[in-house]
Amino acid sequence: MVSGGMDSCVSAAFAIAHGYHIAFLHVNYRQLTEKRELQAFHAIGDYYDVKERIVIDLIHLATIGGSCLTDKSIKVPNAKLDNIDIPVSYVPFRNANILAATVSWAEVINANAIYVGAVEEDSSGYPDCRRTFFDAFEKVISDGTKPETAISIVTPLINLSKREIIKVGLKMKAPLHLSWSCYKQEDIPCGKCDSCALRSRGFRRAGIRDPLYHC
Amino acid sequence: MVSGGMDSCVSAAFAIAHGYHIAFLHVNYRQLTEKRELQAFHAIGDYYDVKERIVIDLIHLATIGGSCLTDKSIKVPNAKLDNIDIPVSYVPFRNANILAATVSWAEVINANAIYVGAVEEDSSGYPDCRRTFFDAFEKVISDGTKPETAISIVTPLINLSKREIIKVGLKMKAPLHLSWSCYKQEDIPCGKCDSCALRSRGFRRAGIRDPLYHC
Repeated sequence: MVSGGMDSCVSAAFAIAHGYHIAFLHVNYRQLTEKRELQAFHAIGDYYDVKERIVIDLIHLATIGGSCLTDKSIKVPNAKLDNIDIPVSYVPFRNANILAATVSWAEVINANAIYVGAVEEDSSGYPDCRRTFFDAFEKVISDGTKPETAISIVTPLINLSKREIIKVGLKMKAPLHLSWSCYKQEDIPCGKCDSCALRSRGFRRAGIRDPLYHC
Repeated sequence: MVSGGMDSCVSAAFAIAHGYHIAFLHVNYRQLTEKRELQAFHAIGDYYDVKERIVIDLIHLATIGGSCLTDKSIKVPNAKLDNIDIPVSYVPFRNANILAATVSWAEVINANAIYVGAVEEDSSGYPDCRRTFFDAFEKVISDGTKPETAISIVTPLINLSKREIIKVGLKMKAPLHLSWSCYKQEDIPCGKCDSCALRSRGFRRAGIRDPLYHC
């Protein structure tokens, strides 16, 4: 699952390091930065020379709404990283929708593992980014697919901080300069949304300059 | 979740009997009989005077393929009801995709229960129609949504045979004459696909004439 953000970019690096032959899946769901994320997806795919790619439309997430990422009448707020509430950028049950689609494809192409760049501790407080959620989903996969299908969900970053993801990502030569994180703008990162704030805090804490601005 | 088939029609009758204020969700996924199923969905919705309806497109299921229902290069076979293999009409992990979308909507409209017309024993052998699958999915809902969200999956028909569904459905005045079951044709039921065969065997065993042909 490759959104084109930093986390999915580093997860792809892990999948390769773990010896997998990789296939890339990307999801459009009418999010504000749909085009820019897709561009990042293909740039990372080209970097890793990924032959098998699929881009799917989960437009129903926009039909259903309920998030500032999919409903233009809800404004993307500036970051409040210490907020313990679930932010309005939470797309209801989004990861379950994306995972379900990914499992469908995985079953068709006989894949054994789905790599997800979810981050539990340093995330924006989304309930569907926790390992317990992925554990529960693995049981659903096991119960809801053909007997011969065996697909695990691998979350290599789940317990890392953004700082650690950046450090390990650069060590693994993940193309962070090709990734896109901003929720709000497609030309230059807004620097103010949750995702920009988490990214820039991560680079600051890692003591590294974000290569996105220097390539 | 209302496909427009007999089982979802009777499930809606159960939801009403259980005292729920109901909302109808239908899914298009480029299945062969997409238009006819949607027509049945609205006819059943009109019958029950359902104000809240949503129709969502899960076109990615067609993009992904892997089933005779979504890939026109795979022929819809004639029924083999005693076959123990998973039939080619199995859309990989379809119910998880539909459920995930339904949970997203349910969370937005603050619904408490999702009624699913899945049938375990008398089904076509789909792995994602078993109660163990729905139990596992309830755990995913609980782990993957907001803390205040509480959504259960109700499967009132799960242990019934088609014969029993028909009998109880007619007793509850479910509008079976408005439902559509055929996988293959939109004008008149082909009578030969798995779904037609299950329906006609059910009516035969119930000793009742299918009202679809007599309205």
